[in-house]
Amino acid sequence: MQLLTNISTLYTCKDEGSQGDLHPIENAAIAWQDGVIQWVGPESGLPGEFAGTEVFNAGGRMVVPGLVDCHTHLAFGGWRPDEFEMRVQGRSYLDIAKSGGGILSTVKATRQASENELYKKASDLLDKITGSGTTTIECKSGYGLSLKDEIKTLRVYRRLADAKPVNVVSTFLGAHTIPPEFKSKREEYIHLIMDDMIPRVGEEKLAAFCDIFVEESAFTADEARRILERGKQYGLRPKIHADQLTSCGGAELAAEVGAISADHLERISDEGIRAMAEAGVIGVTLPLASLYTQEPFLDCRKLVDAGVGVAVATDFNPGSAPSYDLTLAMMLACNLGRLTPAQALKGATLYGAKAIGLDDRAGSIEPGKSADFLVVDAPSINFWMYHYVPDREIEVFVGGRM
Amino acid sequence: MQLLTNISTLYTCKDEGSQGDLHPIENAAIAWQDGVIQWVGPESGLPGEFAGTEVFNAGGRMVVPGLVDCHTHLAFGGWRPDEFEMRVQGRSYLDIAKSGGGILSTVKATRQASENELYKKASDLLDKITGSGTTTIECKSGYGLSLKDEIKTLRVYRRLADAKPVNVVSTFLGAHTIPPEFKSKREEYIHLIMDDMIPRVGEEKLAAFCDIFVEESAFTADEARRILERGKQYGLRPKIHADQLTSCGGAELAAEVGAISADHLERISDEGIRAMAEAGVIGVTLPLASLYTQEPFLDCRKLVDAGVGVAVATDFNPGSAPSYDLTLAMMLACNLGRLTPAQALKGATLYGAKAIGLDDRAGSIEPGKSADFLVVDAPSINFWMYHYVPDREIEVFVGGRM
Repeated sequence: MQLLTNISTLYTCKDEGSQGDLHPIENAAIAWQDGVIQWVGPESGLPGEFAGTEVFNAGGRMVVPGLVDCHTHLAFGGWRPDEFEMRVQGRSYLDIAKSGGGILSTVKATRQASENELYKKASDLLDKITGSGTTTIECKSGYGLSLKDEIKTLRVYRRLADAKPVNVVSTFLGAHTIPPEFKSKREEYIHLIMDDMIPRVGEEKLAAFCDIFVEESAFTADEARRILERGKQYGLRPKIHADQLTSCGGAELAAEVGAISADHLERISDEGIRAMAEAGVIGVTLPLASLYTQEPFLDCRKLVDAGVGVAVATDFNPGSAPSYDLTLAMMLACNLGRLTPAQALKGATLYGAKAIGLDDRAGSIEPGKSADFLVVDAPSINFWMYHYVPDREIEVFVGGRM
Repeated sequence: MQLLTNISTLYTCKDEGSQGDLHPIENAAIAWQDGVIQWVGPESGLPGEFAGTEVFNAGGRMVVPGLVDCHTHLAFGGWRPDEFEMRVQGRSYLDIAKSGGGILSTVKATRQASENELYKKASDLLDKITGSGTTTIECKSGYGLSLKDEIKTLRVYRRLADAKPVNVVSTFLGAHTIPPEFKSKREEYIHLIMDDMIPRVGEEKLAAFCDIFVEESAFTADEARRILERGKQYGLRPKIHADQLTSCGGAELAAEVGAISADHLERISDEGIRAMAEAGVIGVTLPLASLYTQEPFLDCRKLVDAGVGVAVATDFNPGSAPSYDLTLAMMLACNLGRLTPAQALKGATLYGAKAIGLDDRAGSIEPGKSADFLVVDAPSINFWMYHYVPDREIEVFVGGRM
């Protein structure tokens, strides 16, 4: 049994009340064994049986759950820093894509990379991401876009899941875009996804979710229905990149197909909000992507007020969101998405875990959950989000280990 | 003589060409003595007389000038994290001020703090700021608003200037707002500034600049003229907080009175841009303030295209810009202010130094300037600004010392 004591305030973030209810415990302690939380409460009420165990001291600082980044594209070849300069100079995403940049340039670099090269790069990034407080992460494929390269990417994630202390969950995103060799054979690529990729991913249990980019420039709602239904047959729960660049009914579709989350949503319709609330679909806001693509920011408060649970994630990828800083994403979700700091934190913990179906083991500090938590050197949640600094001291416990 | 060698690319940022010209040198070296740069050039051309001196190795990384944060309010009492929550919930800055928050709550806390308390807090912050890459900083008073408390704040800055390796330059901002005890005696407060504060600041050489908040809710253009002219009589160069919340001719006034910089400028008029370009006034963009106050962002590119030099700064203060992260400010100036990464970097180095009259010693890597530079672990300027991470490795040399 191991203990963390001398916690000024412990924000449990448990699944009760509204998105802003963090369920704090003053002068708290946590006890865990074999990486699983056994007891949480005021230190004065700590049961006697936990005495004499290994004790960590939080130094009177606050403790929050380990962060959950429920939307990343972690494994990719290359980077695209020069497109960043082009975009701020006014060239559009589409225009850059046409001149050989955009997603397809990452597809090219990802296909060229060996599995080991992809693994090494993603592993180094994941170590830094963990150091910044993220203890559970979702990782998407979608830069392979061939059977071989999609499987290669998902195997990288499986190796990371096995090798790293953090929780890694994978999403199959073969329907990220139409690869160049299928440009004039769209239906053939959809068949490749449905008949070859999904069965293989399902049989090898390489992913938990099937995601699709529903957008004028990517896949239609009808195509999404077919692909996501096929995914379901192989045990993959649907997720949707929805209403990012155009309002195209992605949120409504997410409700219709029983998606666990709909992500982006910058241009969600009021009907889409209602449909998501009714169906219990989590909305995932990705403010770093809005920032880097100079797109409008999602009004997260409107979703929360309508009863939609909102998760906050980074969308980390080499094009539209080249930062893995989930604390910055939370700060932006406050400033530009109108979430309160408490709502943003629950969005990057409990609601993040819900968006990837891991709220049975992550996202809050409760008995039975993984011993993932952060000791944060800030006097309050408001202060942490408000006084954003690049060098905030954070001690990361993942699976009970610091 | 000391040397830094094995630099992949050295971005000198010298004052030639356009704002985006960083004047790089490949495979470079720097030599300095007693904190002053003696030689800069390709390592292969290093003169023989520098052999056998103390050598630092940049490890093949790039080197840029130490950052210049030309607009901060470093010394203050208290913090205002709960106002952050109120603002994202939709309460206006003015509304918060009316209920006892805003600048005046910081004035209250600053008055209550002793000089030593203010010094200790500002000193701790400055150490962190330096660690993040800022080697020259401007610090404003303006939370005292009485003769005693303005002098107290400026003395804190003088002590920091003496004690710290970084360049600290002070600005008198008695005209930040009308303090509560002068609410119905506006003209009396202006006389206090002109007849008591400015002469004292000038005689004790406690500041280099006189700044004023020109805004409907603060001071009029006519009041600014009187105060800034009095400042000039005591050797204080004018600066102006201009056109932040309303377009009120602040930029035009800056040109008229020969201000060294006009800062904020979110609502600058086209006439104001022309006037600043003609008069050579530096425009200081403060994107963190725009972000935290949910105000529109300054279109910096428009200023650059019109021939205005644009500096990038944090506006670090406990209300509207509670972050001292100048790298984040640069990234935001790219994403939301349309500067290229190179323009943003020159904005946070050379143009920052120009905005505080220190371009004779700071802001670029050239012989005769202070040996202030950063070894940055990124393959290019574009990459550094684009792949924003909270844990970028940066080695800071200030006055030639790491």
